[in-house]
Amino acid sequence: MGRVVQASVLLYGHHGGKRSCRAGCWLCGLSVLLLPMFVAPRAYAQNDALSAARLATIRDAALQSKYALRETFILANQIGPRLPGSVQAAAAARQIADAMGTLDLKVQTIPAPVPQWQRGTADAAVVEYAGRPAGVEQPLDIAALGNSPATPQAGITAPILMVRSYDELQANAKQAAGRIVVFDVPFDRQLAASGYATTAYERVAHYRMHGPAMAAQLGAVAALVRSSGGAHYRLVHTGMTVWDGVDHPIPAASVTGEDADLLESLAVRGPVQIHLDLRPISGPTVQEDTVVGDLPGIERPDEIVIVSGHYDSWDLGTGAQDNASGVAAAMGVAAVFHQLRLKPKRTVRIVAWANEENGLTGASAYRAAMARSLDRHVGAIENDTGTGRPFGIAANITPESAAQLAPVFEALSTIDASFLVRSAQPVAADIGLLTAAGVPGFAPLVDMSHYFDIHHTAADTFDKVDSDNLRRQVAIQAVLAWWLANADPLPRLPATAADQPPLSGE
Amino acid sequence: MGRVVQASVLLYGHHGGKRSCRAGCWLCGLSVLLLPMFVAPRAYAQNDALSAARLATIRDAALQSKYALRETFILANQIGPRLPGSVQAAAAARQIADAMGTLDLKVQTIPAPVPQWQRGTADAAVVEYAGRPAGVEQPLDIAALGNSPATPQAGITAPILMVRSYDELQANAKQAAGRIVVFDVPFDRQLAASGYATTAYERVAHYRMHGPAMAAQLGAVAALVRSSGGAHYRLVHTGMTVWDGVDHPIPAASVTGEDADLLESLAVRGPVQIHLDLRPISGPTVQEDTVVGDLPGIERPDEIVIVSGHYDSWDLGTGAQDNASGVAAAMGVAAVFHQLRLKPKRTVRIVAWANEENGLTGASAYRAAMARSLDRHVGAIENDTGTGRPFGIAANITPESAAQLAPVFEALSTIDASFLVRSAQPVAADIGLLTAAGVPGFAPLVDMSHYFDIHHTAADTFDKVDSDNLRRQVAIQAVLAWWLANADPLPRLPATAADQPPLSGE
Repeated sequence: MGRVVQASVLLYGHHGGKRSCRAGCWLCGLSVLLLPMFVAPRAYAQNDALSAARLATIRDAALQSKYALRETFILANQIGPRLPGSVQAAAAARQIADAMGTLDLKVQTIPAPVPQWQRGTADAAVVEYAGRPAGVEQPLDIAALGNSPATPQAGITAPILMVRSYDELQANAKQAAGRIVVFDVPFDRQLAASGYATTAYERVAHYRMHGPAMAAQLGAVAALVRSSGGAHYRLVHTGMTVWDGVDHPIPAASVTGEDADLLESLAVRGPVQIHLDLRPISGPTVQEDTVVGDLPGIERPDEIVIVSGHYDSWDLGTGAQDNASGVAAAMGVAAVFHQLRLKPKRTVRIVAWANEENGLTGASAYRAAMARSLDRHVGAIENDTGTGRPFGIAANITPESAAQLAPVFEALSTIDASFLVRSAQPVAADIGLLTAAGVPGFAPLVDMSHYFDIHHTAADTFDKVDSDNLRRQVAIQAVLAWWLANADPLPRLPATAADQPPLSGE
Repeated sequence: MGRVVQASVLLYGHHGGKRSCRAGCWLCGLSVLLLPMFVAPRAYAQNDALSAARLATIRDAALQSKYALRETFILANQIGPRLPGSVQAAAAARQIADAMGTLDLKVQTIPAPVPQWQRGTADAAVVEYAGRPAGVEQPLDIAALGNSPATPQAGITAPILMVRSYDELQANAKQAAGRIVVFDVPFDRQLAASGYATTAYERVAHYRMHGPAMAAQLGAVAALVRSSGGAHYRLVHTGMTVWDGVDHPIPAASVTGEDADLLESLAVRGPVQIHLDLRPISGPTVQEDTVVGDLPGIERPDEIVIVSGHYDSWDLGTGAQDNASGVAAAMGVAAVFHQLRLKPKRTVRIVAWANEENGLTGASAYRAAMARSLDRHVGAIENDTGTGRPFGIAANITPESAAQLAPVFEALSTIDASFLVRSAQPVAADIGLLTAAGVPGFAPLVDMSHYFDIHHTAADTFDKVDSDNLRRQVAIQAVLAWWLANADPLPRLPATAADQPPLSGE
């Protein structure tokens, strides 16, 4: 999922008025860049393709469509987990290409380098602590983090150093050598419940992505990271770890919140030792396809509007919400256009990104392949935040773009999805590189208060997909994509707003 | 935890009045045996030991006591999972005996035969189904059920037969031979939320306990049972399986609700095959101690009031609520009496039962050992339903007993725990055999609406223990135990109400 901060907020309600919102929205702005602007409702029927009736027809067809749910089922339940480089990921790419063909899309594939990292077994136990009865070891629930190397065959047995922040790690830097550093940074459930789930996640996920490398640089022998999510059902959270600048990566695993609590409670009573046995297998880099399906524009086929999701997933669950539902929703937009026999002015391009999870290489390869046509990408939508109730659109757009989008929000007001959050940073991961190149970026704005309870865990399964919300998400994207493909193009992003690096591997 | 059905309900509120309740309570009565009775508040200060002031002092000391939480911590976090027959279970028995000594209790141990069953690894995958891409297998999250044998070394690969009831199994009995029978009976979350959690659990747990045996008798090669609880976080539920009357037990495992849904969704599309690999180890029966600590009565030391919990647990979690907190609460009662230097008229006996989970043999051995003194057991309390908010007492008592208990409920009214549910069946598992012998039985009445979300799963960990509720539970049991140990004895149960068999192994 993507990253959205520093937002201004506009609400287009049923009454066409506006309300500014800082406290109640799901986005955390360290600073709010832009003041809310007043955009009055206006006549927008520039032409038939953009009439209110046409947009309403698209919205309503999407609300009736079962396509996205069916495609989610195929990806999550018939194909299953789609770890980058796996046979399942390749099967998903083939299935998606076939399905795009059935929708009469013009299909191409763009190969990307993908790491072949397999999880393998993971075992750990607390083997020494104050108050330990003789002969007792306490098992820990752990899972290797993406790109972790394996432990030596005999495993690693070492004392732990528990830290609750990077500052605490630095303050105890000399103690890290030879130890297993445990990053015990809890997910802020209250923050998530208050609408700032993404902020709560990013705070903890940073430790998962970068903590092990910092521990390695201090001479630690392994790293454990408290699960980066809100679940309290002994769920281990996985995800990518980055080893930039580290010559010798160390075994790194996620440990459940409960087990982190256990370690903390034992550590305050005396020294704690852990035995750790991780068996991930890192294979050679392979090629995997980003799948692109075009509904060619009838007036300006070389101008492109992207609607997208990534088809890869982590492997503990079946990646149903992260992100089978997202790529299925994008395909659902094409299905609606196909059903309505719509011919857009510009090309609507459905993209199923390869390998978002472990390096964002599908998006990088796409940008490289499209280097010469980036200025003809007029907009890019990505859906990668689960199937919570959508209530609007997050957008990387210029201030003046908001007024232009009024017809879109008018059409979405009947499904209470007229909230606009304008962001200075990418609103989703895969389209971040396009945003950086100036392409206006969009994502459905979704209630994520419970998304991180299951995200990147074994519980990300098909039963969690809310079919009503998924249809609403398709409706939002279909209306927005149709408008982008037919209306006057939005201004491209200024360099100041576009030069934020995308958040890879989330 | 125990079993309570067929209840009549009395509420002693702050105003001393009564309300009858059928719909809103947590107990499901197939029939309500007895009508609610009116019991007016009355003067009850028979003697100083039973004065309202004394009972209030006991209640308030319990509400301040940290003893039970500390003891729960030791059992759950320092000793960990306490599978019957394990080194941890033995360590728990030693620790409890030592702690009882520190409270100046007179300690004895009663050995019981305990099966040495260890979980071992469990792997499963769906290996054949309609729509399966070549080379794809879908992993299932499973755990062996207690007393399951292992699969052959090569595992078992077989088609499944999914059933949603015993009736459906019988209707398809001829198809069971050679198959893996999957009992797909979902836990009724709505029923649990409505206050009938125990009923919801018993409905599904019956399949876990007896389903595999039925499948075996029809020639099935293995059995999977949908997790018997309310969790939807890919949590596998474990527990005991009974093989009565089965010559050749078959491998039996629990499968998460999500995975059962997956299997169901695939099974409607065509034949499904599973590969199953279970490695539990069944060892010889060993002896394990039920630990008994007496605070001797100063007038009638041979008359006994039991306050109890079981110290063993399943091993996926740390058995924090099932039942570290329960046995700790019983010890907490002794700690309160010790702190207040109370000397009861009758003996107050704290019992930490061995092996409730896998056969209830600790309770059986106790009954056998006490065969000659059962008629001098005047009451038995057990706490085995987690640390939800307590709101009263569940009791196996005669109708006329309710009036006698009025002083207890008066004392508990300040903590909103004046609800009485009188049951015709045992209110907890270990004391069930005592109830069957006519001993009045009691259990704190607890909000269990979320108990079965974590019960018998990896999520039963110390962080789930609510310390305030635990203190309230200690208060209830301390007041009740003190009253039972000093007041006129309650009538013993009639045979008609006492001959229900206890529900073993829950």
